[in-house]
Amino acid sequence: MDMLWSGWGDPAKAAPLPESVTGLLRDLLGVTPRDSGPPALDGIETPAPALTDEARAALRTALAAPDGLREDAESRLRHTRGKSTPDLLRIRAGEVDDDIPEAVVLPSSHDEVLAVLRACVAHGLAAVPFGGGTSVVGGLAPTTKRSFVALDLRRLDGLLALDEVSRTATLQPGLRGPQCEALLNERGWTLGHFPQSFEWATVGGFAAARSSGQASAGYGRFDEMVLALTVATPEGTLETGRAPRSAAGPDLRQLVLGSEGALGVITAVTVRIRPLPTSRVYEGWRFASFEAGTAALRRLAQDGPRPTVLRLSDETETFVGLAQPDAIGSTELPRNPGCVAIVGYEGTDEDTAVRRATAREVLLACEGEFIGEEPGDRWEHGRYNAPYLRDALLDAGAFAETLETAAFWSAIPGLYTAVRDALTSTLTEAGTPPLVMCHISHTYENGASLYFTVVSAQGEDAVAHWAPAKRAANDAILAAGGTISHHHGVGTDHRDWYAREIGPLGIRMLQAVKAEVDPSGVLNPGVLVPLR
Amino acid sequence: MDMLWSGWGDPAKAAPLPESVTGLLRDLLGVTPRDSGPPALDGIETPAPALTDEARAALRTALAAPDGLREDAESRLRHTRGKSTPDLLRIRAGEVDDDIPEAVVLPSSHDEVLAVLRACVAHGLAAVPFGGGTSVVGGLAPTTKRSFVALDLRRLDGLLALDEVSRTATLQPGLRGPQCEALLNERGWTLGHFPQSFEWATVGGFAAARSSGQASAGYGRFDEMVLALTVATPEGTLETGRAPRSAAGPDLRQLVLGSEGALGVITAVTVRIRPLPTSRVYEGWRFASFEAGTAALRRLAQDGPRPTVLRLSDETETFVGLAQPDAIGSTELPRNPGCVAIVGYEGTDEDTAVRRATAREVLLACEGEFIGEEPGDRWEHGRYNAPYLRDALLDAGAFAETLETAAFWSAIPGLYTAVRDALTSTLTEAGTPPLVMCHISHTYENGASLYFTVVSAQGEDAVAHWAPAKRAANDAILAAGGTISHHHGVGTDHRDWYAREIGPLGIRMLQAVKAEVDPSGVLNPGVLVPLR
Repeated sequence: MDMLWSGWGDPAKAAPLPESVTGLLRDLLGVTPRDSGPPALDGIETPAPALTDEARAALRTALAAPDGLREDAESRLRHTRGKSTPDLLRIRAGEVDDDIPEAVVLPSSHDEVLAVLRACVAHGLAAVPFGGGTSVVGGLAPTTKRSFVALDLRRLDGLLALDEVSRTATLQPGLRGPQCEALLNERGWTLGHFPQSFEWATVGGFAAARSSGQASAGYGRFDEMVLALTVATPEGTLETGRAPRSAAGPDLRQLVLGSEGALGVITAVTVRIRPLPTSRVYEGWRFASFEAGTAALRRLAQDGPRPTVLRLSDETETFVGLAQPDAIGSTELPRNPGCVAIVGYEGTDEDTAVRRATAREVLLACEGEFIGEEPGDRWEHGRYNAPYLRDALLDAGAFAETLETAAFWSAIPGLYTAVRDALTSTLTEAGTPPLVMCHISHTYENGASLYFTVVSAQGEDAVAHWAPAKRAANDAILAAGGTISHHHGVGTDHRDWYAREIGPLGIRMLQAVKAEVDPSGVLNPGVLVPLR
Repeated sequence: MDMLWSGWGDPAKAAPLPESVTGLLRDLLGVTPRDSGPPALDGIETPAPALTDEARAALRTALAAPDGLREDAESRLRHTRGKSTPDLLRIRAGEVDDDIPEAVVLPSSHDEVLAVLRACVAHGLAAVPFGGGTSVVGGLAPTTKRSFVALDLRRLDGLLALDEVSRTATLQPGLRGPQCEALLNERGWTLGHFPQSFEWATVGGFAAARSSGQASAGYGRFDEMVLALTVATPEGTLETGRAPRSAAGPDLRQLVLGSEGALGVITAVTVRIRPLPTSRVYEGWRFASFEAGTAALRRLAQDGPRPTVLRLSDETETFVGLAQPDAIGSTELPRNPGCVAIVGYEGTDEDTAVRRATAREVLLACEGEFIGEEPGDRWEHGRYNAPYLRDALLDAGAFAETLETAAFWSAIPGLYTAVRDALTSTLTEAGTPPLVMCHISHTYENGASLYFTVVSAQGEDAVAHWAPAKRAANDAILAAGGTISHHHGVGTDHRDWYAREIGPLGIRMLQAVKAEVDPSGVLNPGVLVPLR
């Protein structure tokens, strides 16, 4: 199934907002309904494809399958940009620019990927690797004067190897989250990687963008799961990872992870796997304040036991009920709900019971109030729904976007305040006072991530209206010591702040690697680092 | 205190082998006593220092301290090579070549390191970063026609910051293991990094060479502890690491870690720290075979609970008693001791007790036999003694060297056999049948490391005699799917095998980074990657 071209997910799952929410949006944020939703797909004018006959022939030769090259308008539109709110607003407006690919190529093997890259070099095309198309940071929107093709990896969707002794699996990059889990589950294993984009994003994208899942407290981030990688570049193949850990030089796996297609196309990923849990339980805890809840999360992250899922909503997010997206606007919410944490355990029955009992003592000692499994069950039920909710908000004329960062624990309070204030003051000054909600989405021994959701009225030109707020948030993140992204990535949207974060020498190091593996600048040009 | 120039450690701690061991060496391996030990330090002829007046003046200007530049023979000899057995054999023979530095420089700050590197660029010198001088892989022996200076970091030995909320410490690179622990311990914290070289190696070296300590099962490898790095290069400063984890591009920390001075000089390292344990216990377990013991270690590494220390000697190592170096040759050893594992727990009293009790059940289920705390205590007492033992073996006319690798669990049995056979057959064919011992030194969910110790007679020219065996072991490691080093590093000794491990494109990526940060090739030339 293809994703809704103008929004998120399965078109059949789209649902309008309940009346209570549209009322809340109107009364609280001044949101006024828009006239219309997105145009029909076939009503959008697309520039004529500009592949030369020679380039077309070369791409056809690179691909064994006769239908491996697609130049029709629908295929090209479905591979235009990602799923950030500005991406959606522009595609909803029927706005297509030079960020539409000339064609979509569908290779079926590593060698075909190599051949496509060689064809691109020979014919002056760029190539944008495309997994689930779920980037929210401009990772699919190259900055280039050149024509480009979308290199869609969906046909590389196999489980190449399963080593039950070492507990590793070798996966092809085009496997979507549920496909990957199904292949592993039927053999008794799980990857344990469940980001919000799980239903659509792919293994290759998880690796290329350093994805982090909702169960990262227990299973780790995707980049921590990766043990080996195969990468296709215009200069040939890189294979890296012969052991879980090595002292043989820099860790090249960690140079490929997060490279967002700019240093190569990931064609195989070996990951660690875990036994399928026999027990899963998610529960709610309430804290009097975000500060108190943060202290409790830190204590679990530092001294254990580590739950599998651990997240904490701030007062606003708890109040609005976004922690349980299905309940937004519910009248059952208490007036001052404090801050709700979702704490989950997955594993064997015994392990789950032991960790739960021990963590319970810690949480009580941290003045947490146990509020039962119902909030946990609601969270689980709605864990992948927020992007659908965003579509409904956009349909209702509201603006909704998310952004995220991470820092060491001691920087978290300042970072939280700085980003919230930057968003609030910028949008308020622009005449659209926002609701800014936040949760701690991922915890580590030494720090945590903060995930912000912003909802406001759209303003006249919604994309232009949002830009200064996003810039202000990015500036605030860097000034408060945070990283410009904890799990969304860099893309083109964060590129300038990324350059400030790692400094000119860091950028030069990456540009040097890129020039070595991609001297013609074929790979996702302008994403991650500026063109040299 | 300076290390023994011709061998390991504190000269006062040197001790001859007991009669029982020299007898064993003679009877079992045909080791015949050598005529003499190493020559006197002041008896060694060193080539005259070749710094030009201009270079000398520039280095003096770069350093504030009047004694920051040293050209005397003793300083230069003490900074010649590292501590591999071939290094020791050559220095014991009074053999000094173009691998002696022209001078030793002792900067006191990051800015002085930058200034030294600029002076080297201006005057055609190379610079070899020098921490504890404990490299066993040729990491201090550049391949260059140029003159070079040893850049000794011992004066950068401060604790720059301690963040008790985030549990991080920022350390200067010249801190030796015990200095570093003392600074942290007095505030109630520990790094938990205890490699065999602990007493002499430095924080900068731990990072540059991806060190792994004896308690890595509990505290992790050094590269897993590093959260941020400051690096001086001829092209300026790199600062990397603003959060425990980030999706902002490739992880540049992991590009610097393992770069062995070839990509920059590490001038500050921020690491995670842990509360000082209140309880420490080490115990012995016996298994019928290496295979059975390996299965038990794997089960703990994969399903927990993870001990803090976890190592398993094979039959030969158990028999010889090298697992407890002080007991070598002891007549108390049973005839067939099986394979002994050392299992240790450090932490709070409660945590230690719980993990120990749970692990005990697992080890019993894996047919382990508990043999009490005495083997654990002996291991703890002798944990840093093996390099002293090597000096005594060399004094007695024997040859002794170690090498190590790592792989995924399913490759471990084949790797073990391949390396042991390669060493045994090569040295036996050369007329000096060896004792080859092995232990699993570090465990991970997905694999483990193997640490081999070889003892034999020296042969006519001991360095040349060893070379084919070392090459055969390296070839066997790659052929069996292992990495060329789990924690010793690449240096110049492993460089050719490293190139085979990561492939030509991997080498080109690193060379491109090196050319960018070090266009004149000043930094440890020929170490890690070949000169371009």
